[in-house]
Amino acid sequence: MTSQTDRARPSFVMEEAVAILARTPPVLDALLRDLPNDWIMANEGDDTWSPFDVVGHLIHGEQTDWLPRVKIILDHGEARAFDKFDRFAQHAKSEGRTLASLLDEFAALRQANLSDLAALRLTNSDLARRGRHPELGTVTLRQLLATWVAHDLDHIMQISRVMAGQYSDEVGPWRAYLRIISGAQGRSNRRDRAPLQDLAEG
Amino acid sequence: MTSQTDRARPSFVMEEAVAILARTPPVLDALLRDLPNDWIMANEGDDTWSPFDVVGHLIHGEQTDWLPRVKIILDHGEARAFDKFDRFAQHAKSEGRTLASLLDEFAALRQANLSDLAALRLTNSDLARRGRHPELGTVTLRQLLATWVAHDLDHIMQISRVMAGQYSDEVGPWRAYLRIISGAQGRSNRRDRAPLQDLAEG
Repeated sequence: MTSQTDRARPSFVMEEAVAILARTPPVLDALLRDLPNDWIMANEGDDTWSPFDVVGHLIHGEQTDWLPRVKIILDHGEARAFDKFDRFAQHAKSEGRTLASLLDEFAALRQANLSDLAALRLTNSDLARRGRHPELGTVTLRQLLATWVAHDLDHIMQISRVMAGQYSDEVGPWRAYLRIISGAQGRSNRRDRAPLQDLAEG
Repeated sequence: MTSQTDRARPSFVMEEAVAILARTPPVLDALLRDLPNDWIMANEGDDTWSPFDVVGHLIHGEQTDWLPRVKIILDHGEARAFDKFDRFAQHAKSEGRTLASLLDEFAALRQANLSDLAALRLTNSDLARRGRHPELGTVTLRQLLATWVAHDLDHIMQISRVMAGQYSDEVGPWRAYLRIISGAQGRSNRRDRAPLQDLAEG
């Protein structure tokens, strides 16, 4: 294995998607459990989300979004649109909870949902089955599962950004090099250009 | 603990910084170890970095950047500028290595460096000591340590983004909701606006 090989973009493979989905609870556990409350509750200002809020949101997704939508596709195809997902449900549902209990619940729900998913023994032709998103229209089961994965990664990214932002003043002059703090566009295309900011340092 | 309390931004506290720094190796381990090679070597196109490259970069930082600079500040203050950091050293140094060995090396180096840091028994007045960055000019030890933390989080964010980007086509219409894929500005300020994209779903 070298850093110059295998650069092709992997396409959707069920086992790989599941492998990534299974990692999110331990990633969040390693990142957040037992952190001081100031860090768990920190956000990006105004009504933006804290790590605590994000974990609650992920729990609500396990309960009402991803696997339920898989089942709607399998049972009803495009005939029945998905239920709308409440993006703010966690604010009430997480009230009074500890982060530790939310992390435990998320891990248990994710494990149960991946077991249920495995039990469905989805075939390639199942992955091509279509459902109906209330806003986006026709989607496939494969797209739903890929989105589940990307959504996890989106929130790991978000939590990292929220946490780094707490030190936006503390880093002093280094702020200019830290894209995560400066808020400069995240994507970068050249090793010798934008990543100099992305990757901090100099 | 509720989602409405303790929103104030935490300022730099040595023990908290160390707690976050200690988490990065297990976070990366949970996220990456044993993933298929296509995912480990995936990047954002052209000469951008893969998760494999990032871990090598973090190793090089442990070896040549963070703690060495702490020591330069303590020993020389502003009289001696930091050595420049080679952002591309990992491409040669990681050649032929496995990700597993890089993750192990990073974890061992980080642990050793945090032990060395603790042994320095830095005081608040130490944290105010000044050093000289070759490009940024005067910086403090406290800023250096805060940057070490933010830099870790920046790379966790980057790896999440690189991974999610592999599914940029696979998610189909959901692409519009996934900021991590669409590349829309990462920062968001209102729970009821931009986060609708950030947090996927609908």
